[in-house]
Amino acid sequence: MMHTIRRLLIGKPLHNRELAHERLPKWKALSIFSSDALSSVAYGPEQIMLTLVGVSGVMAYGYMGPIAISILVLLGIVALSYVQVAKANPSGGGAYAVTKKNLGEMPSLVVAGAVFADYVLTAAVSVAAGTDAIVSAFPGLAGHDVTIDLAVLFIVLMLVNLRGVRESSDAFVLPTYAFLFGVVSLLVVGLYKAFFLAPELIPATSMAKEPMDWAMLFLILRGFANGCSSMTGVEAIADSVPMFKAPESRNATITTYWMASILGVMFLGIAFLIMHYHIMPVPDVTAMSQLAENVFGRNGAYFYIQITTMLVLYLAANTAYNGLPILLSIIARDGYLPRYLATRGERLTYSNGIILLTIAAGMLIVIFNGRIDHLISLYAIGVFISFTMAQSSMVLHWKREKGSYWMLRALLNGLGALSTGIVVIVITVTKFIYGAWIILLFIPLMICLFKAIRRHYDAMAKQLHLPLETGRSQQEIMSVKARHLVIVPVATPTSVVYETIKYAKVISDNIVAVNVASDEDAERKVREKWETWNPGVELVILQSPYRLLMNPLLTYIEQRANTKNPNDYITVLIPEFETKEWWHRFLHNQSGWILRMTLIIFRKNIIVTTVPYHLNE
Amino acid sequence: MMHTIRRLLIGKPLHNRELAHERLPKWKALSIFSSDALSSVAYGPEQIMLTLVGVSGVMAYGYMGPIAISILVLLGIVALSYVQVAKANPSGGGAYAVTKKNLGEMPSLVVAGAVFADYVLTAAVSVAAGTDAIVSAFPGLAGHDVTIDLAVLFIVLMLVNLRGVRESSDAFVLPTYAFLFGVVSLLVVGLYKAFFLAPELIPATSMAKEPMDWAMLFLILRGFANGCSSMTGVEAIADSVPMFKAPESRNATITTYWMASILGVMFLGIAFLIMHYHIMPVPDVTAMSQLAENVFGRNGAYFYIQITTMLVLYLAANTAYNGLPILLSIIARDGYLPRYLATRGERLTYSNGIILLTIAAGMLIVIFNGRIDHLISLYAIGVFISFTMAQSSMVLHWKREKGSYWMLRALLNGLGALSTGIVVIVITVTKFIYGAWIILLFIPLMICLFKAIRRHYDAMAKQLHLPLETGRSQQEIMSVKARHLVIVPVATPTSVVYETIKYAKVISDNIVAVNVASDEDAERKVREKWETWNPGVELVILQSPYRLLMNPLLTYIEQRANTKNPNDYITVLIPEFETKEWWHRFLHNQSGWILRMTLIIFRKNIIVTTVPYHLNE
Repeated sequence: MMHTIRRLLIGKPLHNRELAHERLPKWKALSIFSSDALSSVAYGPEQIMLTLVGVSGVMAYGYMGPIAISILVLLGIVALSYVQVAKANPSGGGAYAVTKKNLGEMPSLVVAGAVFADYVLTAAVSVAAGTDAIVSAFPGLAGHDVTIDLAVLFIVLMLVNLRGVRESSDAFVLPTYAFLFGVVSLLVVGLYKAFFLAPELIPATSMAKEPMDWAMLFLILRGFANGCSSMTGVEAIADSVPMFKAPESRNATITTYWMASILGVMFLGIAFLIMHYHIMPVPDVTAMSQLAENVFGRNGAYFYIQITTMLVLYLAANTAYNGLPILLSIIARDGYLPRYLATRGERLTYSNGIILLTIAAGMLIVIFNGRIDHLISLYAIGVFISFTMAQSSMVLHWKREKGSYWMLRALLNGLGALSTGIVVIVITVTKFIYGAWIILLFIPLMICLFKAIRRHYDAMAKQLHLPLETGRSQQEIMSVKARHLVIVPVATPTSVVYETIKYAKVISDNIVAVNVASDEDAERKVREKWETWNPGVELVILQSPYRLLMNPLLTYIEQRANTKNPNDYITVLIPEFETKEWWHRFLHNQSGWILRMTLIIFRKNIIVTTVPYHLNE
Repeated sequence: MMHTIRRLLIGKPLHNRELAHERLPKWKALSIFSSDALSSVAYGPEQIMLTLVGVSGVMAYGYMGPIAISILVLLGIVALSYVQVAKANPSGGGAYAVTKKNLGEMPSLVVAGAVFADYVLTAAVSVAAGTDAIVSAFPGLAGHDVTIDLAVLFIVLMLVNLRGVRESSDAFVLPTYAFLFGVVSLLVVGLYKAFFLAPELIPATSMAKEPMDWAMLFLILRGFANGCSSMTGVEAIADSVPMFKAPESRNATITTYWMASILGVMFLGIAFLIMHYHIMPVPDVTAMSQLAENVFGRNGAYFYIQITTMLVLYLAANTAYNGLPILLSIIARDGYLPRYLATRGERLTYSNGIILLTIAAGMLIVIFNGRIDHLISLYAIGVFISFTMAQSSMVLHWKREKGSYWMLRALLNGLGALSTGIVVIVITVTKFIYGAWIILLFIPLMICLFKAIRRHYDAMAKQLHLPLETGRSQQEIMSVKARHLVIVPVATPTSVVYETIKYAKVISDNIVAVNVASDEDAERKVREKWETWNPGVELVILQSPYRLLMNPLLTYIEQRANTKNPNDYITVLIPEFETKEWWHRFLHNQSGWILRMTLIIFRKNIIVTTVPYHLNE
């Protein structure tokens, strides 16, 4: 039955040869790789606004414009830098691979921890933002956000990804373009109204600001840091160069320019409209929803915006599912994570990684109660750490490889590394107490874990190594000489004991039956029966006046194990009743199971054998 | 650590010789065996009142007097009958033993089911009533009843009984006498006030009643049936004759008379005072609490009454712990319940029975939300079924044994059987839809279960029987001739495989190593390594293009098992990593465990052996 449910949910196993990649044209690649980056305009500009007006009594709305423009400049630098990455790494590979190649183990582990945190946050933030979009449109859903978030994570995203979907599926192309169409319409209509129909372009309230001081600077920088969340996902195209049609690098470069341009336009446009309509925080209603309502009114166009926003955000969460399990499998293959994260499941997906991501994102959503403004403080720092590392790697790369215009390219990547490095510092300082410390604690912890796992695997490989060529191990195994003692715990002579001892005689000549008696009367009875039967096997009776069964048995086994020659074997034979009806199992005590588990887990050098005895009735 | 917690909670194991019984003087026996019966005056009279005034608009308070007197008469008959039981069974034994001896299997199983239900209800009702007493005194506790009930059940009663306490402990004597003292004082002061200080003995409102019709008769009979809950526990002394000092029967008889007299006086007195003060239902306040407040005011005497009532009720719940586990062990020894209910735990208590009782009573309390007026509808029917069975048994007993005055004694028990039988019918009819149907469904279900368990044990005993005397089994075991195939699942030749195959060579000459390869490349690699090593063992490689590990392995094992001679053996050797650090375990996949469990549970005739391999680092 479990099997049927599994097949229904996940589908039938897939053959190895069904693993294949399709090359993508630019228009498809754009929609598939940039849903993460583009969808972030749904919360990025809003987060700047929330930071500036969130603190009661402070007038800081007026700094929104400068912040938006700074982010736009940063976006330009990062996009240009990533074009260099795409050119230098036609075989693809994200920041982890690039850093490992150019900067070595430690920096690559920093990136691994940072990217891991950021993928999980991408899933959590995008799902939560998608739900916010739909809750804004249907206020009746308010209060059920976390439930909706978890349903989307566990029922939609996890199951779809466990089944495995081709990244190139049209289902992923449509929502991105539908969303683009919606946002562009919103901007066109909104800008037309602002320029030709409204009394003023930006109301005075949106320009008001208090004079600059240290506290105000800190607030502005935090708004900038939160706005940087809009730039997560910019690296996706450069990481996936081999997925493009030939010429891969050129196509990837062009797509990066498109993506950055569209993102820049949308980001600036939305930031402008937020200022124009002087959008303020409203509980359970997103800034995008307020904008759309101001521009279109609450009609079909409004609902189109909200629904496509929701879809593209859920799709953005899905990019974490495309990226993280593969990244985990690469890290696991390097020995820094459990091996089973590196094996493909029956549907050719990295099932363990998918489940891990779902659980981690689900926990974040539950802990932060599905609130983006809280999650956002953890977000982006990981991405910018990996940006900095990747760009620094590229500087070394150009310096080593040289090639045409290498100094210019190195300079460009150097500028990228410098500016993203500054952003890392800004984020760290301004969001530290709001949650960035969690990530800054998480990354070193992950590095320790990575290293400990690698140490264990290295040590194990050394221990498991068998010198095949020397022939020594072959000679030894061909001439095994060892004594073998078989211990059979028995209650009273029954046909189960008979069958068990029969098997014992097949595997050894040295057998001892052990009985635990709680008083002398019981001991005498068992001994009499044994002597009547006389199966040619010694019977040892252990006294247990406290009616304990396990302790005397374990003590006896241990004692025999301690006095044996290290090359000899001790096998404990445990009979196991297999009842005909499942519920009959509960009519027998479970001491067989308990003894087996105890011996396997806690006792060294004891071999445990289960001899099944099937009851017919 | 588990061990330390266990020792702390339960105490150290007890030696067999620490099992001993103390003989009790009458004054101790009275308090110990009658806490159940006597404490029931705390809710019995109240339940009559609740039935009569609970239905809105019906005036039936006036029937309280006649009902109380009928119950008193019934109590007299039952007490006299049980004196005969005590005389006839100096060796003790409850209704189950008596019925089994005189009426046979089926009636004794009816009693077993009925008494089982009633012991559980005794625990649930008494704990709930005890909590009600304390909640009445401290209204701040209202709403936490179920929590308090469960805490008393699981923390106090279960743990104390798992540790094991001598039934004769003084801790059990004091509360009963303290409660008796309190109730007698209440009655004396209350009656004094009623007779000498109050304007009228019974107010007109307490005498008002509508004329008798069928509906009214039904209501009155239901009030009577609920009031009969006061009589549960009357049988306790007759069941425990061997616990008395010599002359046992005589002492038990005298104690029964005492107990019945005290119970009768208290019951009648409280019923009278309820009528005198015209007590009406008040949420979260018991009738006893209202009485005590009316008689004493809310002073020390009032709190004394409430606290001793609580203590004696919790003590009454404890009588279920004294009785049910022993009863279950007797039924289990007869083969009608799982054997492990019949073995004493390390503290000499029947631990499994104690846990079973606690869970069952806890579930009842949760399901009925700790409300006595709901639980009471299930209560008493079991007790009266066992009364009827026991008394009927006694009639047969006297008829068979004869002896002095046997016709008179048989007549007395016959009268007891007849009247309690009528009560069974009254309870069944009047409380059927209120919950009695649950018990009437439960008893036949239990009988089916008892019989099915017995059938299984009988069938098993037959299958396990080994003819020791004939010598045939001995001859066969002395000359075992069987071929033995050992199957070793291997990944790639490592020192684990080396160790496992070394053991395989010790137990058989016929070994096959099995590898599962997901593609031809993997197959070729393993085969090359194997040939380089050349351990003298055949290697079979199974193709698994769907990357499944278990399925091909299980199919292969099954196939070999199906083609073998029935007398031959197949052993599957499963290596098991024992890691040095506990968390290293999570770095290895669990396919060894899964394979072992699958083979043991689902495959017949396969012997499963675990060969431990201990990692040093």
